[in-house]
Amino acid sequence: MPTKPGKQLETFDNPHRQRDYTIEIESPEFTCLCPKTGQPDFATIYLIYIPDQKCVELKSLKLYYWSWRDEGAFHEAVTNQILDDLVAAIAPRYMKVRAEFNVRGGIYTNVVVEHRQSGWQGDTPPAQQI
Amino acid sequence: MPTKPGKQLETFDNPHRQRDYTIEIESPEFTCLCPKTGQPDFATIYLIYIPDQKCVELKSLKLYYWSWRDEGAFHEAVTNQILDDLVAAIAPRYMKVRAEFNVRGGIYTNVVVEHRQSGWQGDTPPAQQI
Amino acid sequence: MPTKPGKQLETFDNPHRQRDYTIEIESPEFTCLCPKTGQPDFATIYLIYIPDQKCVELKSLKLYYWSWRDEGAFHEAVTNQILDDLVAAIAPRYMKVRAEFNVRGGIYTNVVVEHRQSGWQGDTPPAQQI
Amino acid sequence: MPTKPGKQLETFDNPHRQRDYTIEIESPEFTCLCPKTGQPDFATIYLIYIPDQKCVELKSLKLYYWSWRDEGAFHEAVTNQILDDLVAAIAPRYMKVRAEFNVRGGIYTNVVVEHRQSGWQGDTPPAQQI
Amino acid sequence: MPTKPGKQLETFDNPHRQRDYTIEIESPEFTCLCPKTGQPDFATIYLIYIPDQKCVELKSLKLYYWSWRDEGAFHEAVTNQILDDLVAAIAPRYMKVRAEFNVRGGIYTNVVVEHRQSGWQGDTPPAQQI
Amino acid sequence: MPTKPGKQLETFDNPHRQRDYTIEIESPEFTCLCPKTGQPDFATIYLIYIPDQKCVELKSLKLYYWSWRDEGAFHEAVTNQILDDLVAAIAPRYMKVRAEFNVRGGIYTNVVVEHRQSGWQGDTPPAQQI
Amino acid sequence: MPTKPGKQLETFDNPHRQRDYTIEIESPEFTCLCPKTGQPDFATIYLIYIPDQKCVELKSLKLYYWSWRDEGAFHEAVTNQILDDLVAAIAPRYMKVRAEFNVRGGIYTNVVVEHRQSGWQGDTPPAQQI
Amino acid sequence: MPTKPGKQLETFDNPHRQRDYTIEIESPEFTCLCPKTGQPDFATIYLIYIPDQKCVELKSLKLYYWSWRDEGAFHEAVTNQILDDLVAAIAPRYMKVRAEFNVRGGIYTNVVVEHRQSGWQGDTPPAQQI
Amino acid sequence: MPTKPGKQLETFDNPHRQRDYTIEIESPEFTCLCPKTGQPDFATIYLIYIPDQKCVELKSLKLYYWSWRDEGAFHEAVTNQILDDLVAAIAPRYMKVRAEFNVRGGIYTNVVVEHRQSGWQGDTPPAQQI
Amino acid sequence: MPTKPGKQLETFDNPHRQRDYTIEIESPEFTCLCPKTGQPDFATIYLIYIPDQKCVELKSLKLYYWSWRDEGAFHEAVTNQILDDLVAAIAPRYMKVRAEFNVRGGIYTNVVVEHRQSGWQGDTPPAQQI
Repeated sequence: MPTKPGKQLETFDNPHRQRDYTIEIESPEFTCLCPKTGQPDFATIYLIYIPDQKCVELKSLKLYYWSWRDEGAFHEAVTNQILDDLVAAIAPRYMKVRAEFNVRGGIYTNVVVEHRQSGWQGDTPPAQQI
Repeated sequence: MPTKPGKQLETFDNPHRQRDYTIEIESPEFTCLCPKTGQPDFATIYLIYIPDQKCVELKSLKLYYWSWRDEGAFHEAVTNQILDDLVAAIAPRYMKVRAEFNVRGGIYTNVVVEHRQSGWQGDTPPAQQI
Repeated sequence: MPTKPGKQLETFDNPHRQRDYTIEIESPEFTCLCPKTGQPDFATIYLIYIPDQKCVELKSLKLYYWSWRDEGAFHEAVTNQILDDLVAAIAPRYMKVRAEFNVRGGIYTNVVVEHRQSGWQGDTPPAQQI
Repeated sequence: MPTKPGKQLETFDNPHRQRDYTIEIESPEFTCLCPKTGQPDFATIYLIYIPDQKCVELKSLKLYYWSWRDEGAFHEAVTNQILDDLVAAIAPRYMKVRAEFNVRGGIYTNVVVEHRQSGWQGDTPPAQQI
Repeated sequence: MPTKPGKQLETFDNPHRQRDYTIEIESPEFTCLCPKTGQPDFATIYLIYIPDQKCVELKSLKLYYWSWRDEGAFHEAVTNQILDDLVAAIAPRYMKVRAEFNVRGGIYTNVVVEHRQSGWQGDTPPAQQI
Repeated sequence: MPTKPGKQLETFDNPHRQRDYTIEIESPEFTCLCPKTGQPDFATIYLIYIPDQKCVELKSLKLYYWSWRDEGAFHEAVTNQILDDLVAAIAPRYMKVRAEFNVRGGIYTNVVVEHRQSGWQGDTPPAQQI
Repeated sequence: MPTKPGKQLETFDNPHRQRDYTIEIESPEFTCLCPKTGQPDFATIYLIYIPDQKCVELKSLKLYYWSWRDEGAFHEAVTNQILDDLVAAIAPRYMKVRAEFNVRGGIYTNVVVEHRQSGWQGDTPPAQQI
Repeated sequence: MPTKPGKQLETFDNPHRQRDYTIEIESPEFTCLCPKTGQPDFATIYLIYIPDQKCVELKSLKLYYWSWRDEGAFHEAVTNQILDDLVAAIAPRYMKVRAEFNVRGGIYTNVVVEHRQSGWQGDTPPAQQI
Repeated sequence: MPTKPGKQLETFDNPHRQRDYTIEIESPEFTCLCPKTGQPDFATIYLIYIPDQKCVELKSLKLYYWSWRDEGAFHEAVTNQILDDLVAAIAPRYMKVRAEFNVRGGIYTNVVVEHRQSGWQGDTPPAQQI
Repeated sequence: MPTKPGKQLETFDNPHRQRDYTIEIESPEFTCLCPKTGQPDFATIYLIYIPDQKCVELKSLKLYYWSWRDEGAFHEAVTNQILDDLVAAIAPRYMKVRAEFNVRGGIYTNVVVEHRQSGWQGDTPPAQQI
């Protein structure tokens, strides 16, 4: 399991903490390795979150995604891990990760994972945003 | 009725049982036979589920779909049967199967079937996901 | 008013009465006549329903639509009549008919009609399905 | 303000008053004049309504839209006026007008206006229909 | 922080204050500077609002957006600032700003910010409108 | 074989005989009957021609297409016949008819037929125009 | 026939006469009147030309198109007339006008007209440019 | 190698032998087996031809394609074989087969094969037709 | 006229001078100023060239485009100037510049300019590549 | 420079050497490293060729592309190198490689390289095929 990548994530203070607002980040260049065959997997990672105290810095997020390039990871595991690493880094009010993997064997697979801050009562972003 | 296919489905332990999350699997290469005429039918099968204890293994799912290749099956029956077989194999918290059949006689037909685990109170995935 | 068409609709027993599920049928080849001018009108008919005891047989549905080919019918009337004929034939738990007529005089017209079985408490299919 | 256009709208009796149903009319050929510069403006008018006693006759609606061809009108005013004229003519249970104006100065502008009959308790059409 | 732009926004009286209605304005030609590198950033700004006493005049809005051309601004800050400036100018019942920034380093970023007038009980526009 | 339709085609004098120019006419509402089964067929007819002395009048062309509504006709035959009827009516410098038939049995069929006036040396319209 | 419009076209000196190059201008807001019925027609006008001594000034071109707003004109005539007026104004090395008219009676009509300067030996723009 | 399929192809006399014309047939439901793994392959077969004495009958073509359902065949071989079987059956003036296979291992493969009748001098259909 | 930008273009040696090959570069973020009104103009610049001794370095090309941000320039002039500057910098065997400007006043304008090295006999890239 | 990858390419005998035919292979999952920054680059590689004695085996081609995953390579160099490696492996009658790289700094870059067998007189595939 990649524990180092989570450490690379840099943050900055949320400049508008007084209101809930939404940040969406689409990254079509995610690649890791299949843990069974060692062959490359490719995915687009959609990230949507409502920040609390911190926002994730974009360049470090790019580097974090790149740190998966040589890691073997199952679809379900890598998507949950990305969410966990990002929640650990910025503790958002709300966050959703949607990973759309490239077709393999005629099958397209997506994994969608959500986190909601304990005690937060806000509205989640509408479903069609990612 | 194909009872053997259900037996082919392999599973693995859900790696993140502590949270509800969603797995979507699109398979545009489903084919079976028309029980009236014996001619091939074609469909795209959209599967979406929230796992509980088990996830369905993708390669065995592909083989399961392929096992329908020489079966005669009505649209309504095959869609319900796929849902039943998958629920029997992994007992998910939630599952939806949407089968979009190729046009026949100028008519496009889809069948959409859902299963909800008894006692589960979670939110179902938003409608636009499949 | 076309009363004969309704008689042509054949049905078969719903093979999975124990659960609510949805059947969608898109027919882009509907044509009738304008009752004012006698000129052909064209439409795509979207049908979505949750069956109760009966399903509509697809070939007879195709013939039913074809039976409108020489009938004069206003947009609002034909859409309501199709719903009435289908409800009379299979008494579904829920049914929606959406007729999208081809442009005339620079104007595109659709008519959308719904039926809900008396006493049925189920969820209707999500709006974006047709 | 164009008061004459409203008078041109012809109606006919709603042929299925016993149920709520929806009529959608898209008109991509609306044009009027900019009241500041006198230059032509262009818009697509989306109309959606649930009739009560009356429906609007399509040819007269087309003529009504054409009657704006030489009128100067602000975006907000013309959209509200169209709604008011149609409500005056047919007193629908529900009506929405959405005007999508062509780009001017690199800016695309839409105006969306709704009317709900006093005392009517029905469901409004789903948002994605226009 | 650009305080002057907010002053440039001109307004006019809402011509239909008696009903809630929605104005949508899409501006695909927004450009500012990256505060880190000084290089140009590009975005499409989607604005949607329900006016109260005032509407924003379109030409002054265009000039307001242009006033950002030589300003350095982070994605989160500029989107919140645009909302604040517009709320200060017209005090709408509801307003949403969605900024879709051009791809940088293989990453697409959007920021979505909302304002709701204190005490206003109306329905917000449906999510799919911007 | 429909000989009457050809007689219905009305013409008018080409208003610019001194130069070769191109007229394209797309008709997505063509329908005839399958000569084997009697069931309706549907097609889009693309017509492109360079007029000589005559042009085809649009309303009579529409009526001509409608005159096929109750005729049984094979795909190859009807496309060649339409070309023959139009050439007989207006003797164009160049004409092409492309008929795109709706899918039947999972198969999409088009037929493309061309006519070139004897002795005419002009360039034919580029292939991508229909 | 509109003779005044041609007079409104303003020109400026071609700034790069030493090489052949291409200018393309798409105008989706053309409207005139049907000479038979007096009802509005709508078209998109595609203009492509290789200038010689003169270029057409864009604002005057826009006004020229607007000058057709109240003119009755057949499809073939108006397209040829636009070409003639523009050739008279700027005498280009090459010019093509393509008018795509909105659907009427289920039929889409385009007219395409070309002009080539006497004695000019250059290559015409590739067909797919308009 | 499938020799039986070629025998199944039925033909009919070309009804317009006096002119060259083109017939295009798109079949998105082709499936055979991978000769290495035995797993299903899927393809869309585009067929375009100029008939000489004979045309291929559509229903028998559909059956011919279906006859590949249980055959193992490499991409290059099956595409060439389809061309050879069709040429043997109808000896066309010109024929092209384009097979677009579904993605495997992140790779999309097409094979395009042409036949030209010995001594035939006609123009081949433009490249963009399939 | 911007003479400085041309000086900023950096080059590198063509690594495969022995064969003609094509480099395409699309830049959707070009902006300059209207020389009449001072308001921003926006364009996508498509560049296609066959290098001879030199290639243009991508980062310096980006900076070159950015150097137009505060320049006033007519559509025809800026497109020709970009071609001239690039030809001066790398003397390619072939080069084409296509500038697609954003809509202004309901009119979309593109300018397309080509350069061919004196004495070079190669084939130009096919028209549909930009 | 990657010399090892070329050695990995496996081939098989062209099964239909008697006719020229075309093989197209699209690979959207190509990734290498930027030789300046070490950061990942992504591209879609389109390959089109007419085989002579040999065809390239698809699985080894996939592995060949994957062998670039950790190589630093400029856009122009990698595209030419892929062509050279493939020509060395199978000596085709004709081959074209088109590499479409993902956007960097707001700029999209493609490189297109062709090879033609000395002495071969055949027609190259039409430009629109890749």
